[in-house]
Formats: sequence, structure tokens, C-alpha cells
Amino acid sequence: MNNLIKGILEGRKREISKAISLVENNSSRAYDILREIHRYTGRSHVVGITGPPGSGKSTLINSLVKEFRGKGRKIGIIAIDPSSEFTGGAFLGDRVRMQSLTLDKEVFIRSMATRGFEGGVARAAIYAAKVLEASGKDLIIIETVGVGQNEIDVVDAVHTVVVLVTPETGDEIQVLKAGYMEIGDIYVVNKADLPGSDDMASEIKELTKCVEDGWRPPVIKTVALNGTGIGELADSIEKHFIFLKGTDKLKEIELRKIRREILEAAVEKVKERFSPVIELGEGKNLVEKVFSREISPYVAAEILLKKIFKD
Amino acid sequence: MNNLIKGILEGRKREISKAISLVENNSSRAYDILREIHRYTGRSHVVGITGPPGSGKSTLINSLVKEFRGKGRKIGIIAIDPSSEFTGGAFLGDRVRMQSLTLDKEVFIRSMATRGFEGGVARAAIYAAKVLEASGKDLIIIETVGVGQNEIDVVDAVHTVVVLVTPETGDEIQVLKAGYMEIGDIYVVNKADLPGSDDMASEIKELTKCVEDGWRPPVIKTVALNGTGIGELADSIEKHFIFLKGTDKLKEIELRKIRREILEAAVEKVKERFSPVIELGEGKNLVEKVFSREISPYVAAEILLKKIFKD
Repeated sequence: MNNLIKGILEGRKREISKAISLVENNSSRAYDILREIHRYTGRSHVVGITGPPGSGKSTLINSLVKEFRGKGRKIGIIAIDPSSEFTGGAFLGDRVRMQSLTLDKEVFIRSMATRGFEGGVARAAIYAAKVLEASGKDLIIIETVGVGQNEIDVVDAVHTVVVLVTPETGDEIQVLKAGYMEIGDIYVVNKADLPGSDDMASEIKELTKCVEDGWRPPVIKTVALNGTGIGELADSIEKHFIFLKGTDKLKEIELRKIRREILEAAVEKVKERFSPVIELGEGKNLVEKVFSREISPYVAAEILLKKIFKD
Repeated sequence: MNNLIKGILEGRKREISKAISLVENNSSRAYDILREIHRYTGRSHVVGITGPPGSGKSTLINSLVKEFRGKGRKIGIIAIDPSSEFTGGAFLGDRVRMQSLTLDKEVFIRSMATRGFEGGVARAAIYAAKVLEASGKDLIIIETVGVGQNEIDVVDAVHTVVVLVTPETGDEIQVLKAGYMEIGDIYVVNKADLPGSDDMASEIKELTKCVEDGWRPPVIKTVALNGTGIGELADSIEKHFIFLKGTDKLKEIELRKIRREILEAAVEKVKERFSPVIELGEGKNLVEKVFSREISPYVAAEILLKKIFKD
């Protein structure tokens, strides 16, 4: 076992950080790492926290992490929200209330730009979570914003989705109806000291009434800044994981992730094998035939795939 | 041959538009179309026009298209610049000076959102260009902004890259040095009636001095709004295509595009074949083995690829 893998398994921040960088850049070493660490993964609780910009996700995560640290949990945070306070320039910037997290040996924080990763930021975040799983984190939080394709891809790969809203904007419920309502396992009305929070919570409760898979999403009111409701939220998050474990659902999620990972590994293998084959011999001839319009690229691909994977 | 393909080959806007939508959405029919039209492609001149927002790309393209229409050329335009005037809501909006283009039977204009396409906007633009090639367009213009990954992918797939700058911002040359200078086949200083345009043109000429592949990028001053320099630019664009044809370069670019298309077709085939195989029989067993950490997703992928493509 090489030092990088060893460092990850021992939970050392430097090695975790390096491995995540390799994974982000989709380097050839990334797959060596992911292959090596696979056997040490599958035991963490992966939680997605999502909500519109300004709903206070970073502050909520900060409070939540303190709560879970109080219970002795080891925690990883991946922020792929461009408006996240975790993603602002110099790591946490100078926000004092978050500084304590970075000093904690058992908390690992990583922010990711939302563009520029080959294969997309969702893929990068999911594999970064896998590195954090191998590093022994009990709880991994992925912070996302909105309901774009990236977010849907992330939601598909986490165990528990926490949707955050605030009573500040009047059309929040419309926003919820437009996409968030199908994805939440837990709803949080943050900034619940503001007027309108009770109405908002009631409305969301109404909307989640029809859910019939054995888990009715709770609606929790929080004031992240002073810690109100954070204990209840932490309990709900843990309860949801216990619920998943007690049914087939946890395994379902894991199998879905695995199918996707096998497919991505297959695509990676195809890319790896194609580059050398397509430049020489039969590959080169096929490219010429496509150039002369004798065959289409699709026929050429089929012939090359058979050639590459026949034995 | 079905009606959609027939319509494309006859250059009918409705069918071209429909085919591009299918290609954008990466639908399964997209590959049927691309396979069918391949033999009718490879004869168009594909030109990328790129430059910072506000440099006047849309206006320049508008003038340029009129110039080329005067020479009888059939033209396709694909705009993937979010700030493009071609991408504003209702097609061309109410900009009178562009309206005439949309009424022209031999001009096809398509704007693309820069996100939301599976596989990226560059991929969508490149395949849309292929549809336009099959429709008999002599010249296809792809409008992009900036030098991000999308733009680099587009640049790799066009024959001629026109880089547009204006003397308006003092740090343009820095911008050029930062990425545009390696990609331009032709440089345009637009809004050349503004002060500083001569200096800017000289500076760019200085920077392109070292180019040693048989083509020294010309630097052309234009005022897109009144047509100044547009004739010269059109001539340069055609000269560059003739230059490419006279050397191995045109074929080099085409072969690069084809290798990429074969690889993408292969990836598509893998995705297509995986879905059914991974849910049943041996595939299902392999997923279970990955779940139990007996094997990694990479080993499972290898086994399934061999199984799928063995005969």
C-alpha cells in the first residue's frame, strides 16, 4: 500500500486533500486511488444539504458540525455551492465562527469550483466523498445550491437530503414546488425568528403529506446563527439514516451508486484503451474509412470496441 | 431514408431545427441521425468566432453573413455565447438589422444555452454543426465567448478561429496573452474607429510574429456596425480555408474530429449496452460483489466490457 492510501486511511488531511485534487482533475492516478480505497468505503452517512443562495446553508452546516462533533462524530464537508461561505477564496476567509472547524483534526472541509472539472462537479464531489469515506469520516456533508443537473446528480448519490428554505422570500413555496419537494428527506425553515416562518413550515408540512414510502419528511425550524433547532435537526438526520438501514432503501441507494460507478469506470477504461488503439494499425485504417465517408464513426466504434475487449 | 434526414439534406429549416434539438438533448435518435448524415458531411468550412463579451461578435457576424451571402454562400450560425445577441430570448429579438438574416432561406441561426446539455455545450455545438454540414451549408459559424473548456473544445473542432478584440479596455492585450493568442488564425480589432485601435493592432501583430506553421495570422481592423473591413475579413477567412486545403492541416483537423467522434460513439455504445446488462444475471452478481467490497467497480467494469463486446 502506498503512502497516499495509507495517509487517507489514517485520516491525515494532507493526503486526503491530495487524493481529492487528483480525483477532481480526473487524473489517471485518480482511478488507482478509487480502486484501492473501495474496500474501505460504504460505512459513512452521506448527507446533502441544499437550498437557494442566502438560505444560510454554510451557517447551518457550521452549527450542525459542532453538534455532531459534540457526539464524537468525524466529519467531512464538500461545498459545491458557488455562494457558499466555505468556498470564498482563502478557505474560510476570516469568518471567525467557522475558523474553529478548520482547526479540528476530525473535520475536513473542501470547497469545489462549480465548473472546470472534467466529468462535472457532481462526479468530483461524489468521488471526493468516497475518499472521505475511506478516511473514516462518520458523516459527510455535501453542500449544494439549486436544482440543476449537478444537484440532481449529487442528490442521487447521497443518503439523506436536507432542503433548506427561509421565510424571507415570498415565493419560496413556489420554488419548492418547482423541484425541491420531490428530493427532500428533511425540510428546514431557517431564520425561523423571522415573520412568516410558521406559515411556511405549515405549508411545507401540507406538501409532504402525501409521501408514502414509510418516511414522512419532518419540517424543522432553525435559527442557525444561535443554534436554535440544530439539536433536533441533528437527531432527524441520524433518525433518517437508521430508517434507511432498517429498510431496503440504504442498499438500494448504494447499489445505484455502484452501478453508476461501474459504468463510469467502464467509460474510463474505453477512453484509456482507445487513445493508443485509434492511432495505429486497424484503428488508423478505421479513422481513414470514416474520413472517406466509407463508414460512420458509429460503425468504427463498434469494431474497435470488439477488438479491444474481445479477450 | 426517413423524412427528417431527407428534410435536412434538402436544407429545410424545420427539419434542421428538429435534428439539432435531438442532438442537443443527446436523445437516442440523435445517434441515428448522426450516423445517417455522416456521409453527407465534411465539405463545409467551419469557423469559430470568439472574443470577450462586448467585443461586438454578433454585429460582426451579422455583417459577415451579409458579405458571404453576397457571394452566394449558404450559411449556418451557432451561438453558444450567453451574451450573444443571437441568444436573446425570442430568437433575434427585435433587432431590425439582424431580422433580415432570419428571413433568408439559406441562413440558419441557432442559439444554445451554455448549460444543461448532457455532454456539454461544446459537444452539442459540434454535432449541430454536423447537421448543418449535411444540410449543405458552405460556411458554418460558431460564436463563443472566452477561453473556458467549452471554448477550447469548440476551437479543436473548427477549421478557422477568428479572435475578436476591441480597443475599449486597456488590458485586452493581457487577455490575449492569457489564452487567445494561441488559438487565433485571424485577429480582428473591432470598433476600430475608437482611439487606440492602431496600437492594439500593432501589438497583436508583434505577438503573432513567431508563428511558424506557414500561416501568419493577419490582424484586421473592422467597424462591424458600418461594414468597414468586413470584405477584407471575409477574404481572409476564405484564404485560410484554401491554405488549410493546400497543406495536410485540413485533413489533420478532420481526423482529430473523427477520432473524437469515434470515441464518443464508443462511450455512447457502452452506456447503451450497460443499462440492460447491469440489472440482470452476471451484471447483477457483479454489482453485489462490488457492494460487499469483494471486488472494486473497476474490476466489475472490465469483466462486463469483455462480456458485452466479446463477439
